[in-house]
Amino acid sequence: MIVTVTLNTALDVTYRVPKLLPYDTHRVSDTVERPGGKGLNVARVLAALGHEVTATGFAGGPAGEAVRAGLAAHAPGVTDALMPCAGRTRRTLAVVDAATGDTTQFNEPGPLITPAEWAAFLERYDALVRSCAHPVAAVALCGSLPPGVPVGAYAVLVRSARAAGVPVLLDTSGEALRRGVAARPEMIKPNAAELAELTGSRDPLPATRDARRRGAYAVITSLGPGGLLAATPEGTWRAAPPRTLSGNPTGAGDSAVAGLLSALVEGLDWPARLSRAVALSAATVHAPVAGEFDPRTYEEVRGSVTVTAAPGQ
Amino acid sequence: MIVTVTLNTALDVTYRVPKLLPYDTHRVSDTVERPGGKGLNVARVLAALGHEVTATGFAGGPAGEAVRAGLAAHAPGVTDALMPCAGRTRRTLAVVDAATGDTTQFNEPGPLITPAEWAAFLERYDALVRSCAHPVAAVALCGSLPPGVPVGAYAVLVRSARAAGVPVLLDTSGEALRRGVAARPEMIKPNAAELAELTGSRDPLPATRDARRRGAYAVITSLGPGGLLAATPEGTWRAAPPRTLSGNPTGAGDSAVAGLLSALVEGLDWPARLSRAVALSAATVHAPVAGEFDPRTYEEVRGSVTVTAAPGQ
Repeated sequence: MIVTVTLNTALDVTYRVPKLLPYDTHRVSDTVERPGGKGLNVARVLAALGHEVTATGFAGGPAGEAVRAGLAAHAPGVTDALMPCAGRTRRTLAVVDAATGDTTQFNEPGPLITPAEWAAFLERYDALVRSCAHPVAAVALCGSLPPGVPVGAYAVLVRSARAAGVPVLLDTSGEALRRGVAARPEMIKPNAAELAELTGSRDPLPATRDARRRGAYAVITSLGPGGLLAATPEGTWRAAPPRTLSGNPTGAGDSAVAGLLSALVEGLDWPARLSRAVALSAATVHAPVAGEFDPRTYEEVRGSVTVTAAPGQ
Repeated sequence: MIVTVTLNTALDVTYRVPKLLPYDTHRVSDTVERPGGKGLNVARVLAALGHEVTATGFAGGPAGEAVRAGLAAHAPGVTDALMPCAGRTRRTLAVVDAATGDTTQFNEPGPLITPAEWAAFLERYDALVRSCAHPVAAVALCGSLPPGVPVGAYAVLVRSARAAGVPVLLDTSGEALRRGVAARPEMIKPNAAELAELTGSRDPLPATRDARRRGAYAVITSLGPGGLLAATPEGTWRAAPPRTLSGNPTGAGDSAVAGLLSALVEGLDWPARLSRAVALSAATVHAPVAGEFDPRTYEEVRGSVTVTAAPGQ
C-alpha cells in the first residue's frame, strides 16, 4: 500500500467565462468541482496505475465534504482516510478565459488546524505507516501546510515513516521543505523555483546535488517541459521526453510523483523510475482534462524517454 | 406578515485580494459568505425595521445549506420558508481589489428547477399568501428566475396574491418583468436600465408613466444617487436625499423595496413611503458592510428627504 498525505486538501473549482474583464460582472457559463491538493492528485494517478493507495490529511466544512464525495465518485480506487477538522477546507478557483484559454487563480486560505486535531492526525498517520510497511510500501507527503500545523510537520512525518522502514517522497516548498529535507526523506521532487529557494542556486545540476547534501537521499528536480534531473546514491541522470507536448501543465508534477513512487514500490531501477515519471508528466500535460493523464500518450511516450547519465557526483 | 420571494437565492461570497492581476495566481486574504438574492436582502431589512417577515424561494446543495444557515445566524428575525430543490443554489463571487476597492463579479448559473419542484412551490406560496392576508400583508417578488421556472412565473405569483387581496411589489428585469407587469402588480421598482428595456424610452418621467400603462398600479423608478421617481394613482413624485452619500450601492435597491413595503403595510401615504425608501437606500450605500443599512444614517436622512410633486399625469 502507498499512503499519500495532503494536509491542505482543496476543492478545485473551475469557472469558464467568455472573457475576463477586470471590474466587470461575468455570467459563469460552466462550473466544475474536483477534489484537489497535490497528494490527492498523486493518489488518483497511483490508483489509475493499479496501485493500492490510501489518502489521508484533513477535510472539513462544505468544501471538505465535497472533496470526499468527489474522491468517492472520481477516484473509487483511492481509500479515503481523511481526518475531519473543525475549520473549512479551502476552495481554489481557476477562472478560465474562453477567449484566450488563460487562467486566473484565486486560492482561499486553508483551515486552522487545532493542536488536538494535529495530535489526532499524527496518531492516525503512525498507524497507517506501520500497517503499510509490508510487503511493499511508500509514503508521499505533498503540498502546503494549513494554518496551525507546525512548520516542522514534515520532518516529524518523515521520521515516523523512516522509523517504520517506509520510504518517503516529500513534495513541498519553502520552510516546510527546508525542515523536511533535514529529516532525510528518500526523495524530494522540487521544481526549479523550489530548488533555487532551498539552495540559493539557479543552476539545476549543482543545486540538485546541493539539495542531496542537505539530507535527501535522492533529489529529482522537475525541469518543466525539459523533463527531470535526478541526483541519487546510484548516480545522476537526466530524463527527457521525446518531444515537447503542448497542453495544460496542471498536475504534471503530481503525476511525476506518482510515477516515481509506483516504480519504487515495483522495485524498478532509477532510469526506469525516471522514464515512467517523465511519461506520466507528458501524458498529463497532453490530457484533455487538467490534472488527469492520457493513457494513450503515456503508452506512446514511456518507451521513448531518453535517460542519460550525467558525469561526476 | 410580509412574504418575500427569492426564486434564485445565492450564496454571496466576497474574496479580498491585494491586487487583481489577470492570468496570475492570487492568495485570497479574506473570505466572507452571506445569504444573497434580492428577496433575502429585502427580508433582512424588513426584519431590522421590526416587521414580521417570511422568506421563501428555493435553496439546494451545499450553497443552499449555507444560505439557510447564514439566514438563521445573520437574520434571526426572518422566518425561513425556503423550499428544497435537487439543483445547487448558485454562488455569486465578488473579488474585491484591495488596492482600488473595485469589484470583479462572477455569477454562477442558478439551479435547474423541475416541474414538480415548481408545482410544490406554487402550493406553498398560495398557502403563505392566504395566511398572510390578515391583518396587514404584502408580497415582494424579487430577482431573476432560475432555469426551469417558466418565464411567466411572476405573472402567476402576482395573480395568486391579488386573488387573496394581498398587494405585490415586483422587482425583476427583462421578459420576467414584462410578463409580470401585465398581471397588474401594486408596485414595480425598476432602475433606469430595466425601465428603458421595458418601455423603450430612456427619459425617466415619460418611461415611468408608460410602465404604469402596461399594468403596474405604481411605478417607482430608481434614479441611483438621484433618489426615486414614482408614478402612482395618487400622483407623481420625485424623492431625493439631502445630499449624495458615497459608498457601496450594493443592496440599495433592495433597501428601497423594504422601505416601500414596510411603509405600505403601515398605511403611510406616498410621500412618506418614498422618504423612507430613499433614506434606507442612502443608509445602505453609506453602511460599512455591503448590503446592510446604517441605522444612524437612516435616522439622520429620513427627516430631510425632499419629496416634490411632478406636474401632470
